[in-house]
Amino acid sequence: MLQGLSSAERVALLHRMADALVAAAGPILAANAADLADARAAEARGEMSAALVARLVLDEKKLEKLADGIRAVAAQEEPLGRVLSETELAPGLVLRKETAPLGVILVIFESRPDAVPQIASLAVRSGNGLLLKGGKEAARTVRAIWEALTRALEPEVPASLIGLVESREEVSSLLVHADLIDLVIPRGSNALVRSIQENTRIPVLGHADGICHVYVDEAADPDKARAIVIDAKTDYPAACNAMETLLVHRALVDDGRAEALLDALRGAGVALFGGPRAAARLGLEEAASFHHEYGDLAATVEIVDGVDEAIDHIHRHGSAHTDAIVTESAEAARRFLASVDSACVFHNASTRFADGYRFGLGAEVGISTSRIHARGPVGVEGLVTTRFKLEGQGDTVRPFTEGSRSFTHKRLR
Amino acid sequence: MLQGLSSAERVALLHRMADALVAAAGPILAANAADLADARAAEARGEMSAALVARLVLDEKKLEKLADGIRAVAAQEEPLGRVLSETELAPGLVLRKETAPLGVILVIFESRPDAVPQIASLAVRSGNGLLLKGGKEAARTVRAIWEALTRALEPEVPASLIGLVESREEVSSLLVHADLIDLVIPRGSNALVRSIQENTRIPVLGHADGICHVYVDEAADPDKARAIVIDAKTDYPAACNAMETLLVHRALVDDGRAEALLDALRGAGVALFGGPRAAARLGLEEAASFHHEYGDLAATVEIVDGVDEAIDHIHRHGSAHTDAIVTESAEAARRFLASVDSACVFHNASTRFADGYRFGLGAEVGISTSRIHARGPVGVEGLVTTRFKLEGQGDTVRPFTEGSRSFTHKRLR
Repeated sequence: MLQGLSSAERVALLHRMADALVAAAGPILAANAADLADARAAEARGEMSAALVARLVLDEKKLEKLADGIRAVAAQEEPLGRVLSETELAPGLVLRKETAPLGVILVIFESRPDAVPQIASLAVRSGNGLLLKGGKEAARTVRAIWEALTRALEPEVPASLIGLVESREEVSSLLVHADLIDLVIPRGSNALVRSIQENTRIPVLGHADGICHVYVDEAADPDKARAIVIDAKTDYPAACNAMETLLVHRALVDDGRAEALLDALRGAGVALFGGPRAAARLGLEEAASFHHEYGDLAATVEIVDGVDEAIDHIHRHGSAHTDAIVTESAEAARRFLASVDSACVFHNASTRFADGYRFGLGAEVGISTSRIHARGPVGVEGLVTTRFKLEGQGDTVRPFTEGSRSFTHKRLR
Repeated sequence: MLQGLSSAERVALLHRMADALVAAAGPILAANAADLADARAAEARGEMSAALVARLVLDEKKLEKLADGIRAVAAQEEPLGRVLSETELAPGLVLRKETAPLGVILVIFESRPDAVPQIASLAVRSGNGLLLKGGKEAARTVRAIWEALTRALEPEVPASLIGLVESREEVSSLLVHADLIDLVIPRGSNALVRSIQENTRIPVLGHADGICHVYVDEAADPDKARAIVIDAKTDYPAACNAMETLLVHRALVDDGRAEALLDALRGAGVALFGGPRAAARLGLEEAASFHHEYGDLAATVEIVDGVDEAIDHIHRHGSAHTDAIVTESAEAARRFLASVDSACVFHNASTRFADGYRFGLGAEVGISTSRIHARGPVGVEGLVTTRFKLEGQGDTVRPFTEGSRSFTHKRLR
């Protein structure tokens, strides 16, 4: 549908969506107030966390910011029809591999009504159909935003291009339709993501766990180590790219650098738990499991004999999201970056950099720990697929089989 | 495992595999003779097709050719560690997106023992683990080839890197392990592919159907149309990229060009069936369904009112594999190539070009009609994923949040 529209037409639609969002501030904020009243009542009854309630809140300033976000997506480089490669197969026969829309994307998110304009703008930019399912705590807000955005699409684009799914039963029935839906993007708790991954054959773009490690090597610079470890753990502990496990080389335990690191973490309010070795040597309370995402000011610490043991630990207990080494040894860094099989592997940088905006991808569709299609922070390129286009002059394969013509396979770009 | 080996080491392994295949000709051909004897007996009982038996046959010359194929894979450009993009996030903080092995690949194929060296060499080249399951009709041959190849890998690489799966029960139990297997590649009948797609949550690279269309437009050059239609249908009718449906513009029916095309096809031995309009206007026996892959010298013909109706027909009845337009109208070609949402869309070229070798991809892993990961003919790039590597100097995100540092996001390559 949107695929038939030119880039300029899709950009114009995005600007109309941005304007419509601000113009509909009245009904959107009224719907939001109603959702919020219910949410606060639920919070008072102890049925909803303050954090979840906080994420629901919209105001005029936030709507303006969301509209600016849509305009930023409009200003991005055209994602469709990008020529990824061009090959002359033989004189007069040219093959191009181009980007094309993925198809229909089902986005399932919790709370955060601000996800609607973000994901809708990315879908329109990349020519995809979209099905949205928000949490029931934000139902009225999501519907009001959706109404404003889809009205802005008409008449060129039928409102049905962005579908709103309002019941849990509808989601279950959609998840079996691998023929209708090409990609599912869950944005929410680990439990939500895992439940979707386990209940569909449709590809899922996302990550259930973010069990990120920082390994502080024997050859680490103590200042860099402290700065990175504190940033990775305390900058935003609930983020999926926050450090959950700190691995320290045993030499650091012997010379007191480990204790200094732990003191810095404790000074920042971080509760520390130890693996078997760290519990024994550093007097820490033993951690229940190495595969645990605290999502809070807490971390597991373990002692390792060197970079190889650190790599092994990460492969055994990590979630292949983001893992970092702090070292001044080029060889240890090379070994770590070459061997740790995670979506993001960092040297002397905080795990918190694993983020679409920080990576310069423009809008972020999500962070994927899948090994297929898109991995790590994913921008709009995660919403496109490719197509081969071949332009000939009446060419047939027979002359190539018979030997009267030969392939040149000349790379043109 | 293989990921730890350098490119040169993996290339050396491939040369040893090639040599081992030729050196083990004795036991391999003995095993093949035993499989063949059973297959011929089954053929005599009418339990196996002659085509399937023919695909089993190996001889010294074929082994030499397979060894050359392994050497060609060794000579290919290194697929791992290719830098797909490089961005300076901020001064001293550089992000690279690099190719990395996908993980463990399960390949399930029927007959064709020659698939073993082909796929094993691609797996070694791209640093992946491999599980192989061949058809039981080729069991002894497959085992003999597997033994020769895995012995050639030792001692650097344990034989377990290429696993042999010999029972159907093992396959079923593997297909539930999305945690152990990253990609399934079925090579065989549509029924095999469909049954695997329907029974696993692991991504499947392949295609069940190849219902390819050629649309001959009003503005088609009759010579090109005839050449392309004959090639697309008769060059190798059993191939997935052979034409199954011929769509002709109604103007061609009026002026007799359609009848000339049909005569050419009939002259080449092709049985023709018609859709409702073609059956009525051209006196053809009515086809049972538009969604039918003959895989033989037969085709469905239908009349359409123009390029838009052809596009609509293809979307409704095709399998999004390969579809072609024959026309001298630049506008009709543009419209067709922009709108037909198939893995391969061709203008004035035979559908038979949809092939990894002809596309210049080197070895072909398969042809995918999935919209995720890899689409169309897939080379070794279908066996890799990506990783983000970030090199810093002790960088943390806090200064960027606080505004004392800014992202530059300078594209370096």
